[in-house]
Amino acid sequence: MAVMSEHTNPFHDTSPRPHQDERFLRHEIQLVNRNSGIALEALVHDLTPVGLHYLLTHFDIPNLDRETMRLAVSGRVKTPLELSVADLEGMGVETRTVTLECAGNGRNLLAPRYPSNPWGCEAVGTAEWTGVPLNRVLEQVELLDDAVEVAFIGADRGFDRGIEHDYGRSLSVDHAMRDEVMLVTGMNGMPLLPQHGAPLRLVVPGWYGMASVKWLTRIEVLDKPYDGYQQAVGYHYRQSREDRGVPVREIRVKSLMVPPGIPDWFTRERMVDAGTVRLMGRAWSGNGVEIDRVEVGVDGVWHAADLGTRADTYAWTPWQCNWQAVPGEHELCCRATDANGDEQPLEARWDHTGLGNNCVQRVRVTVR
Amino acid sequence: MAVMSEHTNPFHDTSPRPHQDERFLRHEIQLVNRNSGIALEALVHDLTPVGLHYLLTHFDIPNLDRETMRLAVSGRVKTPLELSVADLEGMGVETRTVTLECAGNGRNLLAPRYPSNPWGCEAVGTAEWTGVPLNRVLEQVELLDDAVEVAFIGADRGFDRGIEHDYGRSLSVDHAMRDEVMLVTGMNGMPLLPQHGAPLRLVVPGWYGMASVKWLTRIEVLDKPYDGYQQAVGYHYRQSREDRGVPVREIRVKSLMVPPGIPDWFTRERMVDAGTVRLMGRAWSGNGVEIDRVEVGVDGVWHAADLGTRADTYAWTPWQCNWQAVPGEHELCCRATDANGDEQPLEARWDHTGLGNNCVQRVRVTVR
Repeated sequence: MAVMSEHTNPFHDTSPRPHQDERFLRHEIQLVNRNSGIALEALVHDLTPVGLHYLLTHFDIPNLDRETMRLAVSGRVKTPLELSVADLEGMGVETRTVTLECAGNGRNLLAPRYPSNPWGCEAVGTAEWTGVPLNRVLEQVELLDDAVEVAFIGADRGFDRGIEHDYGRSLSVDHAMRDEVMLVTGMNGMPLLPQHGAPLRLVVPGWYGMASVKWLTRIEVLDKPYDGYQQAVGYHYRQSREDRGVPVREIRVKSLMVPPGIPDWFTRERMVDAGTVRLMGRAWSGNGVEIDRVEVGVDGVWHAADLGTRADTYAWTPWQCNWQAVPGEHELCCRATDANGDEQPLEARWDHTGLGNNCVQRVRVTVR
Repeated sequence: MAVMSEHTNPFHDTSPRPHQDERFLRHEIQLVNRNSGIALEALVHDLTPVGLHYLLTHFDIPNLDRETMRLAVSGRVKTPLELSVADLEGMGVETRTVTLECAGNGRNLLAPRYPSNPWGCEAVGTAEWTGVPLNRVLEQVELLDDAVEVAFIGADRGFDRGIEHDYGRSLSVDHAMRDEVMLVTGMNGMPLLPQHGAPLRLVVPGWYGMASVKWLTRIEVLDKPYDGYQQAVGYHYRQSREDRGVPVREIRVKSLMVPPGIPDWFTRERMVDAGTVRLMGRAWSGNGVEIDRVEVGVDGVWHAADLGTRADTYAWTPWQCNWQAVPGEHELCCRATDANGDEQPLEARWDHTGLGNNCVQRVRVTVR
């Protein structure tokens, strides 16, 4: 385990972030009471315990029957199919450990804040997903030559910005054929729970969670780009409302720490006993790109952390280091850099709808 | 299934409730992102799926080892004991279906709002809890004649209003000896999950959730009332800060419905198709008192719902009825009355810290 040694990288600004819109709406509270995040201390677990994995449910959780549900595969294919969960599992299942993160994670650090779920930094989790590789199904239905996209439609339906739709997303044919894209029926060794998409969901490792369509009932192979709301309008990086935008895809490099010490119930401020404190957490990036390094910032001075081994290509990487805590007020941060050289920014980058915020986490502690 | 018939009971006020403090604090958002409620559509399930059961964690979730953890039973007893989880399970386990509700459920309907977790109405859930009746352990250690209370101390530690403490609560000896009070090691057929108190917790059926101490590591038999913060200061009904208060104990009669139709993502307003709409939900009261009736209010007119059978003495009771939905804006409510004649109020009763709010749920829908 690394004992902290000082780097030369100065910390640009350790003052509290200004938040122009520190008050939250009742609608936001309603959403957060439905959509739960990981408790940060649960980052100690390699696999996030069921019920602590983040959840973002756009509409209502459908109540589908595992026995009678059929997945319809149709569109630009030679042989349309209807498949039961048993049919799918009979095609041979695999298990992958995958870290999923909501594209809206970190939204509440931006101001002004887009009206949506006001995540802090807790919309992340890692699970063992069991299912059949999507490409086995696509090979069985045989795509026609003019196929360009594969759309995935869920059973969850509702309104967003006045537009009624079933939740749906698409992938290019090339991406849909990648080995890691899975039709999932199990999570952490159990059948999928209702809120995680039971009985069948898509998991697209390496991309933000919006791609991993839950309550999947239809796959449509298209000869043109999918025009569903969540694909064509939602989930775009935009500088302003008028901006046409850039589609959100891969997860951006990020890290989180388990806040040390004990909390105050309401403020979550932390009290830490002086001495050697073990800090630990997780770091991850998109598309299976490895984590190159994690640094821990203490009052603006950065120190290298030790990296552990990730469980799978698309799973987070554990990190840890020791901190010699001396009495007083301190700010702790962590910052990951991936093998592409992408590094977490110190400040949130502006995005109109609050997507893709991967700025460093800041934890204020009092050492006694 | 009942077809709605009109009652004579007028609805006193169907206008939207005034909320003097409609904006929420960042600290409240932080708490809600940690403490998750049931998604109301999950009320369709007799047993709340793991991960949709409400969670209220005062401090951090401890990470305890099921194999090495020992429960210390001491104080005013003849034979102090240290018991492993295996020791406890060897004393013979039972399974009970129990509805638990947070005493702070409904807090965000009060104004001004006490600084705590701003629950709407979703802090409830029903699980199958498996464990050993507490009285078997108390009989084994043999209480001394001067024993008056039994205190239960968890491994979770932190600050509340500046006071550092382990979470702890007590019961009178009489209550602790009741058959339904359990030392629980399993939930819904699985070992307890970390966030629900693993490896060992107390479950006190019929009382609000604060009594059901999680991460239980110590039981102390006392010859005087327990003076821990959460017993002596927290969880009292108070009219003002200065009020000495009345301890919070039994769950108050309450009901909830599954909101019909489909939602708008952000506002959660509902769109319902005209015609016969099946409404359903759950009703429960404290101390195992039966639900006598549930009425559904449509635009101020009350209709009787059909009651189903509860799974166990301390489990919620299902109810349902049909509603002939006609186009327009409507407000739906549900109101339960228990066998003691206690009825849910139409308006929230004032409480300084926002406890025990059992006023009727209101669901606004547009029928098309």
